[in-house]
Amino acid sequence: MARPKGDAAVNAARKREILKAAFDVFSRDGYQGSSLSQISEIVGMTEAGILHHFKTKANLLTAVLDYRDEASRGLVEGFNTDGIGFVKAWLNLVSYNISAPGIVELFCVVSAESTSANHPAHQFFKKRYAETIAMATEAMTDLQKNNYIRKDVDPEDLGRALIALSDGLQVQWLLDRNWDMLEEQKSFFRRILHPKAQELTGLAIA
Amino acid sequence: MARPKGDAAVNAARKREILKAAFDVFSRDGYQGSSLSQISEIVGMTEAGILHHFKTKANLLTAVLDYRDEASRGLVEGFNTDGIGFVKAWLNLVSYNISAPGIVELFCVVSAESTSANHPAHQFFKKRYAETIAMATEAMTDLQKNNYIRKDVDPEDLGRALIALSDGLQVQWLLDRNWDMLEEQKSFFRRILHPKAQELTGLAIA
Repeated sequence: MARPKGDAAVNAARKREILKAAFDVFSRDGYQGSSLSQISEIVGMTEAGILHHFKTKANLLTAVLDYRDEASRGLVEGFNTDGIGFVKAWLNLVSYNISAPGIVELFCVVSAESTSANHPAHQFFKKRYAETIAMATEAMTDLQKNNYIRKDVDPEDLGRALIALSDGLQVQWLLDRNWDMLEEQKSFFRRILHPKAQELTGLAIA
Repeated sequence: MARPKGDAAVNAARKREILKAAFDVFSRDGYQGSSLSQISEIVGMTEAGILHHFKTKANLLTAVLDYRDEASRGLVEGFNTDGIGFVKAWLNLVSYNISAPGIVELFCVVSAESTSANHPAHQFFKKRYAETIAMATEAMTDLQKNNYIRKDVDPEDLGRALIALSDGLQVQWLLDRNWDMLEEQKSFFRRILHPKAQELTGLAIA
């Protein structure tokens, strides 16, 4: 029972350090292309030391994804039943992503890798996409109910399209940042939202 | 000078065999996550034998991408100055991709990996995206000129959005094929095209 609190604090600090280093390595090289030894070198800990905290490299990946995903999802979750609030929150999330290219890189590379059924993040991304598409669909349904979106389009089509557009734009942006990703996302909403909703979301062009 | 033609034919056949195996391996594990030894095992050739034909693993990747890209681009290139033809050709390309998930996987995984500046396909994808966006933009410009698209949208926005949407839908589709990717792409065009153009492209709903 000697200094249990101190030990716990040290443990937590080490775990955060490992997560940070793993985030950097996975963002740059993906999961497949990176090794524990790269992470071990950054944190100055043996590979066994890292595995003591996270058991496997696959577990470490999942921990990094959970850790980085939480902040982003907090920005939009809960707004989906209020379509106008969702659009505003979504554009905030895009601005946040532009300020944090490492996160964009991590999700872009690892989600693509994870399409292989035996990838450790396969279930994570399958679930994440199902949830994100459902969230966007709920928002589109609310916008349509309020006559902010044409009646002849399917809200689920739009929800799926928003997520796809956003992912695809991120790949383009990581390859060449010489254009405005936020503006491009705004254009999507301008194409689908009635003028009144554009006013309410700050999208109207004066 | 003994049987030079025979040797060339054998060489060409071996190269094709290597390309085919490399395509399978890169599609599944990406470039970062795969090794020459995996390819060597499939074709029953030593790694040195493979390198005799392709010099480096990076060169082999570029050769695979060139080889698989040619067929796909042939389907849409040249149509861009005829917007209606482009939309029809694009939808054919989507149908083709649905029938060839390996190609979708290859481009999805390797394009995401290639966002790292030191990836061997970085320049390939930078150039490919610039060309593809320019091609789609040209088609959208033609559609707008013919009053098939609203005057108040930017054709480049739409071109970029089409490519992004298409990439993002492919990630979703590789993770879960329980929805209709062709229908989703058609929905995009139905949202932006006037009824007359929907008729001309076979998109009108009876």
